[in-house]
Amino acid sequence: MNMYQMGIVKRNITRADRVAADHLGPYGASTVHEAMGRVGLMKPYMRPIYSGARISGTAVTVLLHPGDNWMMHVVAEQIQPGDIVVAALTADCTDGFFGDLLATSFMARGARGLIIDAGCRDVKDLTEMGFPVWSKAISSKGTIKATIGSVNIPVICAGALVNPGDVVVADDDGVVVVPAALAVATAHAAGEREANEGEKRARLAAGVLGLDMYKMREPLDKAGLKYID
Amino acid sequence: MNMYQMGIVKRNITRADRVAADHLGPYGASTVHEAMGRVGLMKPYMRPIYSGARISGTAVTVLLHPGDNWMMHVVAEQIQPGDIVVAALTADCTDGFFGDLLATSFMARGARGLIIDAGCRDVKDLTEMGFPVWSKAISSKGTIKATIGSVNIPVICAGALVNPGDVVVADDDGVVVVPAALAVATAHAAGEREANEGEKRARLAAGVLGLDMYKMREPLDKAGLKYID
Amino acid sequence: MNMYQMGIVKRNITRADRVAADHLGPYGASTVHEAMGRVGLMKPYMRPIYSGARISGTAVTVLLHPGDNWMMHVVAEQIQPGDIVVAALTADCTDGFFGDLLATSFMARGARGLIIDAGCRDVKDLTEMGFPVWSKAISSKGTIKATIGSVNIPVICAGALVNPGDVVVADDDGVVVVPAALAVATAHAAGEREANEGEKRARLAAGVLGLDMYKMREPLDKAGLKYID
Amino acid sequence: MNMYQMGIVKRNITRADRVAADHLGPYGASTVHEAMGRVGLMKPYMRPIYSGARISGTAVTVLLHPGDNWMMHVVAEQIQPGDIVVAALTADCTDGFFGDLLATSFMARGARGLIIDAGCRDVKDLTEMGFPVWSKAISSKGTIKATIGSVNIPVICAGALVNPGDVVVADDDGVVVVPAALAVATAHAAGEREANEGEKRARLAAGVLGLDMYKMREPLDKAGLKYID
Amino acid sequence: MNMYQMGIVKRNITRADRVAADHLGPYGASTVHEAMGRVGLMKPYMRPIYSGARISGTAVTVLLHPGDNWMMHVVAEQIQPGDIVVAALTADCTDGFFGDLLATSFMARGARGLIIDAGCRDVKDLTEMGFPVWSKAISSKGTIKATIGSVNIPVICAGALVNPGDVVVADDDGVVVVPAALAVATAHAAGEREANEGEKRARLAAGVLGLDMYKMREPLDKAGLKYID
Amino acid sequence: MNMYQMGIVKRNITRADRVAADHLGPYGASTVHEAMGRVGLMKPYMRPIYSGARISGTAVTVLLHPGDNWMMHVVAEQIQPGDIVVAALTADCTDGFFGDLLATSFMARGARGLIIDAGCRDVKDLTEMGFPVWSKAISSKGTIKATIGSVNIPVICAGALVNPGDVVVADDDGVVVVPAALAVATAHAAGEREANEGEKRARLAAGVLGLDMYKMREPLDKAGLKYID
Repeated sequence: MNMYQMGIVKRNITRADRVAADHLGPYGASTVHEAMGRVGLMKPYMRPIYSGARISGTAVTVLLHPGDNWMMHVVAEQIQPGDIVVAALTADCTDGFFGDLLATSFMARGARGLIIDAGCRDVKDLTEMGFPVWSKAISSKGTIKATIGSVNIPVICAGALVNPGDVVVADDDGVVVVPAALAVATAHAAGEREANEGEKRARLAAGVLGLDMYKMREPLDKAGLKYID
Repeated sequence: MNMYQMGIVKRNITRADRVAADHLGPYGASTVHEAMGRVGLMKPYMRPIYSGARISGTAVTVLLHPGDNWMMHVVAEQIQPGDIVVAALTADCTDGFFGDLLATSFMARGARGLIIDAGCRDVKDLTEMGFPVWSKAISSKGTIKATIGSVNIPVICAGALVNPGDVVVADDDGVVVVPAALAVATAHAAGEREANEGEKRARLAAGVLGLDMYKMREPLDKAGLKYID
Repeated sequence: MNMYQMGIVKRNITRADRVAADHLGPYGASTVHEAMGRVGLMKPYMRPIYSGARISGTAVTVLLHPGDNWMMHVVAEQIQPGDIVVAALTADCTDGFFGDLLATSFMARGARGLIIDAGCRDVKDLTEMGFPVWSKAISSKGTIKATIGSVNIPVICAGALVNPGDVVVADDDGVVVVPAALAVATAHAAGEREANEGEKRARLAAGVLGLDMYKMREPLDKAGLKYID
Repeated sequence: MNMYQMGIVKRNITRADRVAADHLGPYGASTVHEAMGRVGLMKPYMRPIYSGARISGTAVTVLLHPGDNWMMHVVAEQIQPGDIVVAALTADCTDGFFGDLLATSFMARGARGLIIDAGCRDVKDLTEMGFPVWSKAISSKGTIKATIGSVNIPVICAGALVNPGDVVVADDDGVVVVPAALAVATAHAAGEREANEGEKRARLAAGVLGLDMYKMREPLDKAGLKYID
Repeated sequence: MNMYQMGIVKRNITRADRVAADHLGPYGASTVHEAMGRVGLMKPYMRPIYSGARISGTAVTVLLHPGDNWMMHVVAEQIQPGDIVVAALTADCTDGFFGDLLATSFMARGARGLIIDAGCRDVKDLTEMGFPVWSKAISSKGTIKATIGSVNIPVICAGALVNPGDVVVADDDGVVVVPAALAVATAHAAGEREANEGEKRARLAAGVLGLDMYKMREPLDKAGLKYID
Repeated sequence: MNMYQMGIVKRNITRADRVAADHLGPYGASTVHEAMGRVGLMKPYMRPIYSGARISGTAVTVLLHPGDNWMMHVVAEQIQPGDIVVAALTADCTDGFFGDLLATSFMARGARGLIIDAGCRDVKDLTEMGFPVWSKAISSKGTIKATIGSVNIPVICAGALVNPGDVVVADDDGVVVVPAALAVATAHAAGEREANEGEKRARLAAGVLGLDMYKMREPLDKAGLKYID
């Protein structure tokens, strides 16, 4: 099974460690992205339809054709509680593939959110329902149901490779993908990163400069930085 | 009178049926767009300056030149209660053609909102006043008053044809134009659409899949969809 | 010292008149831009990370290289209470150069906000801290600390020239730069502008048309405007 | 028949005056746009796939859905010698709707070129065949044949309204639409415009300044222009 | 080895079948993309720096950081005759990573071209040398050599996954990636596709309509298409 | 005199050293940009209207308002042989401010080309005349002559500061600005840079790797680069 196969629905996928997947969310996209070694990030054009949401979960993936959301109903059946649906497109499109009815269905299946490299609609309803979506556009433009794509194959969504079962972390800063095999280690690294931040924050708040806290003065001087009056 | 005439203000226009125009609003842009047969939508770059507003009304149109908002004062006089001003440009421009003073005047005339294929400013004031604007940009850039355009001629705004008197429906999802002659039929169709949605929503919320509710399994199978483990 | 010098930190800069700098803020970006004669505005792609903030202050500037935020720590030391940091880039980049730790440090130094022609992250934290940022993008993408730029040289940020010590005014409408030498005069002009607006607003709210209030009917007629029925 | 009807092919359309349509081409898009009163222009993102072509002809129109070029075969049958096909989309799309096989068919029917608000492919072949296309993108992305649109209804293509039978003028500068009813008058106006240009060009080439030739010095002075040393 | 590892150079990669890789080129990107089942295409923003080139070859990949072309020298050593270098970025950047000196080196190693999801420079020289490049931008902006990336790991370039050894086909229409395992089958499918095109072209040139040649009239009628006069 | 003054024409400007200005051209934009220390570059959206031109000259500047090219006639009078006109805008605009008549006048005055942060038209004519233009867009959209700007004040064009008299170097790679005071030193540095390139090119063509020629192996190893099989 590869990312070039159309018309395939894979039912059994190996999801990332549930505990790690759940733990990654609260760290947020930026910390997880750093913990990964500054990789795995989707393009910054992916924006939440409302601010303040922060989720993590395991990816079920769907590959859609422009203007056609038929496979969104197919992927719904593959959702398990704790999943996040990641929808990729075979070509650029801003149509509104997803609205309140599909969201009702996704929520009933236990989905925590949707990441879609296309458009979303019914934003007012989705906001009231508390179902978070990260999308490339908001558009009323409706779609048809005519062409089949695939579910749970590897996809490229907003510039990031997503394998079914990978962990997705999304918040106001963007969307990060953590390969299933790296979920536990990344959760650990994110935790360590954050543990250090509290003390740093306190020192910075007290007026200590990063220049001193991180011992940057010497390397800056070596790099040739000159102070003038 | 056509869309190529400059320097014309048409005073008497035939507005769409008021009842239909008022009824279309609560359905929202996405439902109305579907009820129209998935046409009539402005480009998705048109965004509300604040979220949550949902309006409908009859269009009074104005054609502006880049960097010149003189005609905004001319169109103000043609506003009747229940109207929405639709402002088109002769060339791309993101300047801030509209601010709190014009909004005060528009509100005094009974306008419900502004749709402008250019920039808007005084966003903080407009938000506090509760005067909704859908625009292509937000910009402090001021404009001059030097060149005449036209009022109440047919215009193309964000990719959609708007005739004076047409119904405009706008919310967080975008902006839809309903030709005056189709307003009543579209309100009817939108009503029917929404009537069906309540039951669908309940079933989906109960866990019924769209695959079953819409009887998609057989057509998907015919289209060649394969399930694998 | 010019905008082509790399590796320079200028410690002593002449800041604009503090009273004028503080007075300009409440007028907002649009009024100040008008008071300047409709110049000094940054490109409208600069957007606040949260709505409602309105600040003014004196600029300390920093020139960064794409993907490298080392100089952000250097500029922190040059901040004085009442300053706004203006960060320019040597080439287009949307990486997240700034987050909650740097914000903690900037706040401790007395900074009122950040204007950055690149990306920002930790939006949720920055919003809770109430530290306003105007940026070109929001992105989790981390940066490195490898190459030196400059601090307090003239920079071009989002299309506007900013000299260290200039006044910056930013709100939901955008970001305006007022050269230090023009700060007092601009504050005066903005004040006069606003003084006139109250009466105008009242008359427009009472239904008086701009056409009459501004005596536009005759010039419009001379320009060839025709009314038809 | 209006622009909201799907599934319609109008066979008998009234084409603009053939002589006027043919005469407009050599003037080029910019002169014709001026002769029209600076209206009728498509957005500047419409670019020729190769430089140097300059055509005019009568429009046959087609409305396509994203990712679906089925109607391109339907419109082929409606082409008459001297026509230019104008293809509009119901939503933004950059797929390659048109290649060398369709071009062979269009040429056999007498088409002079294609204007498409989407993508084109087989650029190398089309260039060798000498079949000019103005498009929004170049893309290998193939399309399907599943959904019907309409032929010879009014369409909005790249921001311009095109009625079947209108004259289209296209060259390296862009694409202009001349309503059929204005074709003769526009050809006349374009001719007069160009007649004046020869003498102007000679004088400017001889070093006469536009300032003097157009007698601009006095109005510039009145507008407040100051010369300093 | 995965796409998240930094600082790795893989020396031994398995290249696609050489005969298939060489045969795919002449079919061109559009035919190969169709032969693949309409997948594998890079985003259409990837454009050749000069028109008319058409190449195919096996991919050696390199992952670069914004503004840093150090790894371009590392990848040069891994080039074998018949290879095409595919350069991906960890974040959006338009800097000019590649110019005539690197091209001289790449040509000496036997490279057929470069695909880079960033900027290119020395366009005039590269054109004269006949070294084709497909890029996202053209820019004089220079880069530094400070941070290591990786060579011959899987990368995402302009929205497409490229594994080292895959076949790349590029021409005026864009860039297509054929996984190594599919190269032979795709070459076969492309050949069959093209074999059919000659006869089709002849019939279309003779005036036969696609409507008849592809027997579309009945399905169009079933889909509801109506002809009116 | 500063960049905020409207309605000013400065007649006497100090042009950069003529010999240096003329010598910089043949090095091209990329080499000059490097010789400057990788600064001074306009945004890469500035593209030549035809390929192959490479010019250098001294800048006369003009600040235009969107949609208004009146000042282009004013700047024409200030052109001296060897100058390049640099046109900046007060707000984003893609209108066609410049065509063959103005080009005839500019050529008669001795201008070597135009750099304009807006649109250009009559591309076919300009190409035949051999008058090179670097612009942001190509558009038939005409302009009016109603508002005054300024001539020979400092301007920001496509993100770069240009003072009247500065040297401009433009070719297929883009546009670089060299401050007048740095012209001689930059010409010298560019010459030295190019002198080294011939030998480097010969060695690279002979198969020597940049890795060895630039002695990169040790620093790459220190940076942690690992080779695997």
